[in-house]
Amino acid sequence: MLVNRECNILIVGLGLIGGSYAKGLKKLGFHVSALARRDETIEYALANNIIDVGATGTDPGLIGNADIVIFALYPHVFREWIRDNQKYLKKGAILTDVTGVKSCIVYDIQDMLRDDVEFIAAHPMAGKEVYGVENADERIFYGANYIIVPTDKNTEEAIEICREIALLLQFGSISTLTPKEHDEMIGFVSQLTHCIAVTLMNCSDNEKLVDYVGDSFRDLTRIARINENMWSELFMLNKDSLLKEMDRFLEEFKSLRDELATEDIEGMKEKMRISTARRALFDKK
Amino acid sequence: MLVNRECNILIVGLGLIGGSYAKGLKKLGFHVSALARRDETIEYALANNIIDVGATGTDPGLIGNADIVIFALYPHVFREWIRDNQKYLKKGAILTDVTGVKSCIVYDIQDMLRDDVEFIAAHPMAGKEVYGVENADERIFYGANYIIVPTDKNTEEAIEICREIALLLQFGSISTLTPKEHDEMIGFVSQLTHCIAVTLMNCSDNEKLVDYVGDSFRDLTRIARINENMWSELFMLNKDSLLKEMDRFLEEFKSLRDELATEDIEGMKEKMRISTARRALFDKK
Repeated sequence: MLVNRECNILIVGLGLIGGSYAKGLKKLGFHVSALARRDETIEYALANNIIDVGATGTDPGLIGNADIVIFALYPHVFREWIRDNQKYLKKGAILTDVTGVKSCIVYDIQDMLRDDVEFIAAHPMAGKEVYGVENADERIFYGANYIIVPTDKNTEEAIEICREIALLLQFGSISTLTPKEHDEMIGFVSQLTHCIAVTLMNCSDNEKLVDYVGDSFRDLTRIARINENMWSELFMLNKDSLLKEMDRFLEEFKSLRDELATEDIEGMKEKMRISTARRALFDKK
Repeated sequence: MLVNRECNILIVGLGLIGGSYAKGLKKLGFHVSALARRDETIEYALANNIIDVGATGTDPGLIGNADIVIFALYPHVFREWIRDNQKYLKKGAILTDVTGVKSCIVYDIQDMLRDDVEFIAAHPMAGKEVYGVENADERIFYGANYIIVPTDKNTEEAIEICREIALLLQFGSISTLTPKEHDEMIGFVSQLTHCIAVTLMNCSDNEKLVDYVGDSFRDLTRIARINENMWSELFMLNKDSLLKEMDRFLEEFKSLRDELATEDIEGMKEKMRISTARRALFDKK
């Protein structure tokens, strides 16, 4: 193992995901430190045994002590942090992240970074519709997908460190994609689905809806409770891929709509057979 | 209680929903009989204590013995059944159903029905992505919504009987809608969501998707495993309402798409704030 109990791990950004990393890694016996924006976040994390030590703002000593740094920040904050604080990083430190978009950020970070530290991008495909360290729960990672997003600049060692972190946190499947592949994938499986959920809830202002819906509507709108600042930023940073996926979805949806309008029953059934066969693959794992 | 343990209850159609009604009502101590298409269905239901007595095809004695008859059939089969078998019904029998569309069937059934029996339509908003009596489970009704769909021809007594069945089976919320209101509602909360799930799975033939998705994509496509015969029939029988809902969804979705394309961040955020506020109402219950 490259990641061992001697490693000092620093989490930068102690929200739901950063907090869940901290909680899971501390339970495994790692020394976990954290930087957060607000004093209350650090106080809560210390009081609840989520971290060993923490600070707000910049803390050169704490940063300089970390072997592995995990960034769980908004993309634009991540970039600023690197610009302002990379001078404090320990030589040889491995940096990784949880950011939901990659192309727009990975190359920038790698270009601006010191030569004696390495940034390897990653994306844990896990979350909840609640926020903050108070809701941190390492179990959201159990069995979830973890995507490592290396570039030509990354070493095998850094990729292996990401893999080990994912295994330690009990992710279910670990994949590797290029930044471009990742962003196209995420445009489809994550951002498009959030667009759909938001749209569904915008279609009706009926306040009694809750008394009529079944599980299907509940499931399709669970993610309609959404942090508008984070998601509008993620959408904008992946605009081209997301637009492509939205247009593809529109085209397919219109095709189904037209089959219904023209009573092309066989056409509708064929789409349902395809969806059933493809979705069945998910339930085998 | 109008519905008491002296009532003989007949379930016609012993699939997932009919079987779950049978199982739940028998556990409550009712005498439950059933008619099914296949011998194996009846054998399974008898062997697993889901029904007290059952038959395939027509059974005048069994039909004539029932005080309450619950139909869990495809819409076109339901209509044929009434035409062919209503002569065997006991005078005063109350008939109800679980059919997913109403306008196209309720008035027809009521018009063709003998004057000395009454049909009151209902729709339990519950289901699973599996089929057949083997998967019957009365717990799918716990806390779910139940919609009673009366017409001018219905008596208060029949409405009350439906309400009592729903209470006995532990549904969470019981509402009353007209057939037209029901079909518009169902076009939105149930049929449109199935159209979306089917479309999402038709957008990508990537067989490795399962290694990349998070819960959001899983949740939005759970119902993409779909019985194409049943759902294409339900779509066709509610064509006008569903088309209206599909077009409304298309319009809202395109609006979000255009906001992204034109970088109207405030417009996107406003939609997200609306969706968050509306969806939050669901989680309070």
